[in-house]
Amino acid sequence: MTYCVAMALKDGLVFAADSRTNAGVDQIATYRKLHKFTVDGERVIILLSAGNLATTQSVISLLKMRLGSDQPNLFGVQSLYEAATVVGNTSREVVRRDSGQSQGKVDFGCSFIVGGQVHGEPPRLFLVYPEGNFIECTPDTPYFQIGETKYGKPILDRVIDYDLPLEQAAKCALISLDSTIRSNLSVGLPLDVLLYDRNSFCTARQFDITEDNVYFRALGEAWSVGLRQAFSELPEMDW
Amino acid sequence: MTYCVAMALKDGLVFAADSRTNAGVDQIATYRKLHKFTVDGERVIILLSAGNLATTQSVISLLKMRLGSDQPNLFGVQSLYEAATVVGNTSREVVRRDSGQSQGKVDFGCSFIVGGQVHGEPPRLFLVYPEGNFIECTPDTPYFQIGETKYGKPILDRVIDYDLPLEQAAKCALISLDSTIRSNLSVGLPLDVLLYDRNSFCTARQFDITEDNVYFRALGEAWSVGLRQAFSELPEMDW
Repeated sequence: MTYCVAMALKDGLVFAADSRTNAGVDQIATYRKLHKFTVDGERVIILLSAGNLATTQSVISLLKMRLGSDQPNLFGVQSLYEAATVVGNTSREVVRRDSGQSQGKVDFGCSFIVGGQVHGEPPRLFLVYPEGNFIECTPDTPYFQIGETKYGKPILDRVIDYDLPLEQAAKCALISLDSTIRSNLSVGLPLDVLLYDRNSFCTARQFDITEDNVYFRALGEAWSVGLRQAFSELPEMDW
Repeated sequence: MTYCVAMALKDGLVFAADSRTNAGVDQIATYRKLHKFTVDGERVIILLSAGNLATTQSVISLLKMRLGSDQPNLFGVQSLYEAATVVGNTSREVVRRDSGQSQGKVDFGCSFIVGGQVHGEPPRLFLVYPEGNFIECTPDTPYFQIGETKYGKPILDRVIDYDLPLEQAAKCALISLDSTIRSNLSVGLPLDVLLYDRNSFCTARQFDITEDNVYFRALGEAWSVGLRQAFSELPEMDW
């Protein structure tokens, strides 16, 4: 499984992803799910992926191989909308190719979050479905999740707001990931986190959070303590 | 959908269930999912149900019709283990009967939580799978969930402990239900909550929590405030 979350906020974008892939609990491996396609000063396009690893890897490979070619590609697109179209089409292409000969019930599908900024546009964020179509984030619901989404959703619903500073939103993403990691073995460290500041056209604020990360461990412990504290202060019912 | 949770703790048992049933978002109804089979002073058996409503209703009806008959029944069993067996067998019987003629892909399955106390035993808690087999709760993981379980699991994992007083555990169950209700439209009020005190053999502490319940509303609001407070006090990362 996988858990990725991304947010489109007033000040920019936040991306966070775990890196665990599994085909059964006895086949667990680490694969990064955050991929960057950037031209400094001109475009930043970030992909987060979830689903069939063969499909997502093929999609990423094809997207990279086609950069700068005559085919529609992420360095040629004039908008994030076009970027989502390219990702959706490439995903359809791979699923069609790979599922053609399949006799079994393998799910070849995958989902992508595609976000970033192309010069001339504000930052934008899209969710590309396994079918290749997609939706865009709006300030009313300023986040998308893919993969194992449910455990980490309640905290997002309570904290994430369009006006939240990126640093706070990234902290909330870490809490959401921490909750998911605690409840589902198939989601695990290391984590990739990227804060994209509106109009910066650079990806300097990227973080690789491993088992050794003192902050992440302290954050998880502080959150446990804070939750128990909040719980203990709730009003009592006359049972 | 449905969300039910039950806990087996040092002092007794806690049961909590929502009451929303849906077949698509345009077909929502209220059906109670907490069912009692009690003989005061001798046995208390509580069932929580999730899954196909036709199946769960038939199972409950058959269990009631057979009480006191020659067939194995919940007033005749000598242990909670036997009660779980009776529930599992009745569930298999209904699924076999109803799925026999089915052409389509309807899921006839359902899950039950069966808990309570039969004179001569301590309180016990079982989870009956759609296949009719079952597992028993132990102090290491002293709760079971059925239905839409994921949204409400993180708070249980952080708070529920075998030694927690029943009142605190019931409060935690309400928070778990509140989180699920906020994140999933198909789980809704009213809620059924029951606290069973070890060796009491009575179900006096049962509560029907409706939209008008001032305490539940205050609890949800206090939890939102407490969570945001806990979040705001987390250590800052140098992003």
